[in-house]
Amino acid sequence: MNMINLDHISSNPLLPEVKTALIAAIEADYHNPSSQHSKGDEAAALVDKARDAVAGLINAAMAKEIVFSSGGTESVNHAIKGVALANAKKGNHIITSNIEHNAVIRSLRRLKGQGFTVTSLDVDATGRINPQAVADAITDETIMVSIMHSNNETGVIQPIEEIARITRERKIILHTDAVDSVGVVPIDVQQMGVDLMSFGSNTFHGPTGVGGLYIRRGSLVWPLLDGGVQENNKRAGTENLIGIIGMGVAADAARRDLDQRLAHLETLKAKLLADLPNAIDEYVVNTPPGPSLPNLVSISVKYIEGESVMLMLDDEGIAVSTRSACATGSLRASHVLIAIGLSHADAQGTLVVTFGIDNTAEDVDRFLDALRNVVQTLRDLSPLYKKTAQG
Amino acid sequence: MNMINLDHISSNPLLPEVKTALIAAIEADYHNPSSQHSKGDEAAALVDKARDAVAGLINAAMAKEIVFSSGGTESVNHAIKGVALANAKKGNHIITSNIEHNAVIRSLRRLKGQGFTVTSLDVDATGRINPQAVADAITDETIMVSIMHSNNETGVIQPIEEIARITRERKIILHTDAVDSVGVVPIDVQQMGVDLMSFGSNTFHGPTGVGGLYIRRGSLVWPLLDGGVQENNKRAGTENLIGIIGMGVAADAARRDLDQRLAHLETLKAKLLADLPNAIDEYVVNTPPGPSLPNLVSISVKYIEGESVMLMLDDEGIAVSTRSACATGSLRASHVLIAIGLSHADAQGTLVVTFGIDNTAEDVDRFLDALRNVVQTLRDLSPLYKKTAQG
Repeated sequence: MNMINLDHISSNPLLPEVKTALIAAIEADYHNPSSQHSKGDEAAALVDKARDAVAGLINAAMAKEIVFSSGGTESVNHAIKGVALANAKKGNHIITSNIEHNAVIRSLRRLKGQGFTVTSLDVDATGRINPQAVADAITDETIMVSIMHSNNETGVIQPIEEIARITRERKIILHTDAVDSVGVVPIDVQQMGVDLMSFGSNTFHGPTGVGGLYIRRGSLVWPLLDGGVQENNKRAGTENLIGIIGMGVAADAARRDLDQRLAHLETLKAKLLADLPNAIDEYVVNTPPGPSLPNLVSISVKYIEGESVMLMLDDEGIAVSTRSACATGSLRASHVLIAIGLSHADAQGTLVVTFGIDNTAEDVDRFLDALRNVVQTLRDLSPLYKKTAQG
Repeated sequence: MNMINLDHISSNPLLPEVKTALIAAIEADYHNPSSQHSKGDEAAALVDKARDAVAGLINAAMAKEIVFSSGGTESVNHAIKGVALANAKKGNHIITSNIEHNAVIRSLRRLKGQGFTVTSLDVDATGRINPQAVADAITDETIMVSIMHSNNETGVIQPIEEIARITRERKIILHTDAVDSVGVVPIDVQQMGVDLMSFGSNTFHGPTGVGGLYIRRGSLVWPLLDGGVQENNKRAGTENLIGIIGMGVAADAARRDLDQRLAHLETLKAKLLADLPNAIDEYVVNTPPGPSLPNLVSISVKYIEGESVMLMLDDEGIAVSTRSACATGSLRASHVLIAIGLSHADAQGTLVVTFGIDNTAEDVDRFLDALRNVVQTLRDLSPLYKKTAQG
C-alpha cells in the first residue's frame, strides 16, 4: 500500500534530481578527496561544489564556514560541546530554552557533568522566548546561547535575529538549531546574525546521514571529531562523498524552489486548519499564530491517546507522528508541550502532522476523513470521554 | 583515462552488489527507523539486518554490540573519549602506541587537556608493540589501552590477542583501531578479547561515511553524539540508512569472500616484493616480516621524494599514496616511519602501495615499469644521488 506521508518531520523523500545525482556518484566510484593524486583532486572538487551550494542556501559569507557532518545531531553536539570546551577559560555559563531538541538538551546535560552551568529559559504559551529574558540571564560567565530556530513539535519560530543583536553586543556566541528550518523557510545567516547554526540535509529532501554546521569565521570551536585535516581542520574523517554530493544538489534545488514550496506548504497547512473543525471537536492546536513552520500542525485531541490515533491512521495508510521521531522511546510526556502549558492528559493526545512538497490537498481530505473515524472510534471506547460528554 | 588504483588504503571501489543495494535503497525512499508507524518499522528492520551482517563479520556475540557511526574516525573518537570520560572516576591514565592514526593521537591529545595522562609506547624496528611493555606501563590509574590492530602506513599487525590477555586480567578496557583490518583479514572480537573496536565500511568495499564501533556488552562508554535514543542509546542521530544498508551488504560479501580475497591480495603483494629488485635499487621495505596486512607494501626509495614519485605516477595513470590520506596536509615526516627508525630523508621517499580485489598481476607489472622510469628520472635530477653514486 502506498502510504500518505504526513510525517515529513521524521523523513522527507529524496528529490528525483537528488536520486539521479546519488546514483551517478555511486556509479562513478570517486576516490578519497584527501588523496593527493588527480583522482583525489576530482573528488575534492565535488566536495567544494556541494559546499558552495549549501553556503548559497543559507547565504554564508564564505563556503568554508560550512562544515559537513553526519547530520543535525552531530552538528548540534559539535556546536555545543565544541564552543563550551573551547571557551571554558572565559566562563562556564550557557543559556538555552526549555523546548530544545534532545540533541541540545543532552549535550548540555553532558556539559553540566563537566563543570558548566545551564540556564534554561521558559517560553510563553505560544512557545516563544522573550529576547529580553536572554539579556537578563546573561552573566559575566556566559559564553554561549543556544536557542533553536524552529521547534519540531509545535513549529514555533523563535526571534533569533533579536536574540542575536543581544548576544553580539555582549560578545557571546549564539548557536541555533535550525534542523527543521533550513531548506523549508528562508534562512540568511548573515542577516540573522548567528555564529553557529546546525542543519540537516534530509529536511530539504537530501539524504539522511549528512548535515552541516555553519561556523562564522573567527568563532572559537573545538572539533568534535579529532583526527585528519578534513573540512578545513574542523571535522576529521573521510567524507561521506556520496551524501555530500546529494546534499549539494538538494541545497541548490531548495534555493531555487523555496518560494514555490513555501506557497504549497502554506496552502496545505491553511486547509488543514480550516477544515479540522468539520472533522473533530474538542482539540487544541499547539502551532501558534505568528512565525511558525509552514509544514507543521500540532493538534492535541482530547480524551484519547496520540499513539492509538497514530497506529489506527497507520492502518488506514497514513503516517503521522505523535512527537519528534528522535524522542521516540523516551516514554515521557513531551517537555515541549508541557512547557507551553498543556496538561499531561492533553499532551498524550498530540499528533504532529507535517507536510512535504509531495503532499496534495487530497491527502489533507483523506487524513481528515480518517481522523474523524479514528477519533470517533477511540472516544466510543473511552470511559473518560463518556463521563465528560454525559456530565 | 582509467586509473590503476594502488591507493586502496584511501579508497576502495564499491562492490557491484553494494551498488545495487544502495541504488535500490535510494529508489525505495525508506522512512525514519525511529518512526513508530509501519513505515518506520520497515526501515528499522533494515538497520537490524545490516547490524546482524556486521556482527557476523567480526563475530560479535550480540548484534547490539555494534554501533553504526559515520566512519572510522567517529568510532575512534567515540571509543577513546567515551571510555575516558565515563571512567574518569576510576583513573586518568591511558596507554597507547607511538604509531597510531591521527584519530587516536588527536583524540588523546584532546583528553590530555582535560586532565588525562597518556603513555605512548615505543615500537620495535618492525613496528610492533611488545605486550610486556603494555603490562609494565599499567598503573593503578590506568583505565584504557588503545592499540591499533594494523598500521595504515606499514601494514604491521599488532599482537592484540596477547595484549587483551593482559588488559582483561587487570580489568582495563582495551580499544583497537581496526579500520584497515576489518574485512581485509579475519577478525573475531571474541577470540581477540578486545572490549571496543573501531572500523569503517569502505575498507571492505562499502560506502564511505559509515562505519561501526564494537562495544562489548557491559563496557562503560559515554556516547559521543548525545540526543535521541538511536543505536540502543549509544549514538544519537537519524541513521544513515542508505549507507548502513550498503555496509551490511558489503559485510556479508566480505565474510563470504574473505579467504578468496586474502589469497588474491597475498599473491599481488608477493609478486610486488619479488619483482621490485628488478625495477629499482636502493630502497627499504617498511612492511615487516610476520603478521601484516595482505594488501599493503610500504617502500622508501632513497634520494628522492615520495610526493614527486606519486605525482609522476599519477601522470602515468597510477594512483599511490605517500602516506595516510588522512594525514595529508600535515606536511611533517610520518611519525610512524620515524618510530620504526627511518631517517627523515628516507621517510620522505616513502610510497604506500595498497592493493584491492580489483587489481591484477598486470597492474603490478605496469606499476613497476612506471616506477623504474620515474625513479630513474628523479635520480638523474638529484644532486644528492649523483654525489652518492660518484662517491
